[in-house]
Amino acid sequence: MTDLKTAALQYHAEPRPGKLSTELTKPTQSARDLALAYSPGVAEPVREIARDSELAYRYTGKGNLVAVISDGSAILGLGNLGPLASKPVMEGKGVLFKRFAGIDVYDIEVDAESPQAFIDTVRRISVTFGGINLEDIKAPECFEIERALIEQCDIPVFHDDQHGTAIVTAAGMLNALELAGKKLSDAKIVCLGGGAAAISCMKLLIGMGANIENIFMIDRQGIIHAGRDDLNQYKAVFAHETDKRTLSEAMEGADAFIGLSGANLLAPDDLKRMAPNPIVFACSNPDPEILPELAHATRSDVIMATGRSDYPNQVNNVLGFPFIFRGALDVRATRINEDMKIAAAHALRELAKLPIPAEVKAAYDVDALEFGRQYIIPKPIDPRLITVVADAVARAAIESGVATLPYPSNYPLRSLDDLFRK
Amino acid sequence: MTDLKTAALQYHAEPRPGKLSTELTKPTQSARDLALAYSPGVAEPVREIARDSELAYRYTGKGNLVAVISDGSAILGLGNLGPLASKPVMEGKGVLFKRFAGIDVYDIEVDAESPQAFIDTVRRISVTFGGINLEDIKAPECFEIERALIEQCDIPVFHDDQHGTAIVTAAGMLNALELAGKKLSDAKIVCLGGGAAAISCMKLLIGMGANIENIFMIDRQGIIHAGRDDLNQYKAVFAHETDKRTLSEAMEGADAFIGLSGANLLAPDDLKRMAPNPIVFACSNPDPEILPELAHATRSDVIMATGRSDYPNQVNNVLGFPFIFRGALDVRATRINEDMKIAAAHALRELAKLPIPAEVKAAYDVDALEFGRQYIIPKPIDPRLITVVADAVARAAIESGVATLPYPSNYPLRSLDDLFRK
Repeated sequence: MTDLKTAALQYHAEPRPGKLSTELTKPTQSARDLALAYSPGVAEPVREIARDSELAYRYTGKGNLVAVISDGSAILGLGNLGPLASKPVMEGKGVLFKRFAGIDVYDIEVDAESPQAFIDTVRRISVTFGGINLEDIKAPECFEIERALIEQCDIPVFHDDQHGTAIVTAAGMLNALELAGKKLSDAKIVCLGGGAAAISCMKLLIGMGANIENIFMIDRQGIIHAGRDDLNQYKAVFAHETDKRTLSEAMEGADAFIGLSGANLLAPDDLKRMAPNPIVFACSNPDPEILPELAHATRSDVIMATGRSDYPNQVNNVLGFPFIFRGALDVRATRINEDMKIAAAHALRELAKLPIPAEVKAAYDVDALEFGRQYIIPKPIDPRLITVVADAVARAAIESGVATLPYPSNYPLRSLDDLFRK
Repeated sequence: MTDLKTAALQYHAEPRPGKLSTELTKPTQSARDLALAYSPGVAEPVREIARDSELAYRYTGKGNLVAVISDGSAILGLGNLGPLASKPVMEGKGVLFKRFAGIDVYDIEVDAESPQAFIDTVRRISVTFGGINLEDIKAPECFEIERALIEQCDIPVFHDDQHGTAIVTAAGMLNALELAGKKLSDAKIVCLGGGAAAISCMKLLIGMGANIENIFMIDRQGIIHAGRDDLNQYKAVFAHETDKRTLSEAMEGADAFIGLSGANLLAPDDLKRMAPNPIVFACSNPDPEILPELAHATRSDVIMATGRSDYPNQVNNVLGFPFIFRGALDVRATRINEDMKIAAAHALRELAKLPIPAEVKAAYDVDALEFGRQYIIPKPIDPRLITVVADAVARAAIESGVATLPYPSNYPLRSLDDLFRK
């Protein structure tokens, strides 16, 4: 890790600090150019936008601009280090938005004294942007914050730690279940972790057909059950009447384990308790709840995913958020609703089943780089992601009535349908 | 103007909306690059900044990033059109910051229900930036807003409509007075306009040696005098005991007229009332308080400046703000104080007296492009501006104790001293 540390610090510091800059997209050399860009010409788009606010999308960068906003209260797995320390992460998110989907990002760090102050601040500056990506905000405050901002803003507001994680996890889970010969509606799922990602993941799986009665959520105090009096309203949804209290008890006969705990471990003995063809998503970073080597040594029939790029089946948010926002911005959706999230998950799932492009195969040294136990989720460098996922999200926005523009005339570049037809 | 309108709207709309984008400053092609830019490498600068907040300047773009922030309450001369309509202007300001001084800008439009809400919002997001440029905020609220933010933020906060205008006006005024053979301390100055720019201009001139007793400020209700009960605290500073009530009365024997009214007119008869070698800064845009043709026809001894680029002596804020922020950022000043503003004005003034570079002469079709009545202020394309003004501001920051870094090792590229020595 020392080598990574040195390289990462050098990467951030040299030859100039940070990772983002703002650049000019129009000519600015001549006096005429500047007279158009600023005084007196700029008065013209001002007047037009004052007349019709929609024209902000024609004359300013608003429509391709996403704010990546954090208060630094839950930075990566590092905890509450404050807004300033979160800036490298928010800039990094901006890098990924631009690199994968061509979306401009302003990273905004907010030093707010309360969730309400954070909400007020973001609402007041939201007019600047075409969308808002909330990031690294601790639970349970993140739920209230996102709910309020979705209500109060007329642009998409999306807490990626919740929904991005949920969408990519759901995509992988559907494929893993298919490979295991099981149905989502019957699957017994153990979720280790009771934070924002865990709750959002379970809610999305339920929205896609999982049965809440089959889901056991486990936080630091053990299984979430009806007898507990320490549950916030978001966890309480998952409390059933049960005598089970421990992870080991929950794992008895489980079809899938999803680790979103950040810390807790999955012991080999617990893996042994699972049903045949067990699915283990050990998503904590950098240390998964169980290492793939150990899991495979414990059970040869396990289907594994992790959060790491150096193992097969990485559950990586970058498979989601750039393309979800791309689709939402392209049809100027007023929000990112459940239909759009589910459409994104299905698109990712289906993409994994397609023949894999040569450039993806060339970039990865994986034994079996085709749909199967070692390949249930696409790779971030798959060039079809932007087409397939953005397309699915844009269509779902239109069909669910939250789009304000028609299906983009440049869509599909190559849609999932086209790809399947080949 | 129809041609300008068409061209300006096209410029803003095509080939993509707006004028700014965010771009990546580091490599992002390989998986290794992305592992440094985001997870897991990004945890390293996060930890470093959590340990020492100063390291945000080493590992993020904060130190070269200025927020251009408005509530849209006083957009150009167009009035209160709201935050969204101000976006083209704020993006345009970002264009100028980048084009002239290499400073990255996030334009932020704020929909605030009160000055306090605006202040709270900007304070909470200020951690994101290395400096804050307030823009197009109406008076008198802009004074309270700026004062509060200067107190509450640890980075420079600068309302350009006030101080940028004041600095460039002061530079031109000092040179005009020199050419007229007059001293600032004795000059009788009539200021038409009682808004933010007017008040800041007069305050800066007083800070540089003008006598408040010699200054007559005139708003829509006429001369500001001690008998009025409708003055806010900012205008009241300029109220003297006087029997004069009208512009014409004030102009009797005046040495200088500064028009920052946005609307009112200067009649030839009033120009005739002025002292010999009268100085007329008719800065309203696009229509000056008096056109230079008419002024020169009325009096052959007038020294004229306007806000327009198509006449000599343009009082143009772009001569100030990019370089003032450049100097402030380069020594990481905690504020932009009076010493720094005065240093910027003096630097601009002195630069106008130097031999003019060939590229500037080539770009302007002006009769006498050398120091004199037709050339009292540098041109925005003068390549020496960044050196001379940023250098002066950085030095003044250090000498006045608000800099937190030493004089930059790359300064001066070519300082004013060097230029004079040639």
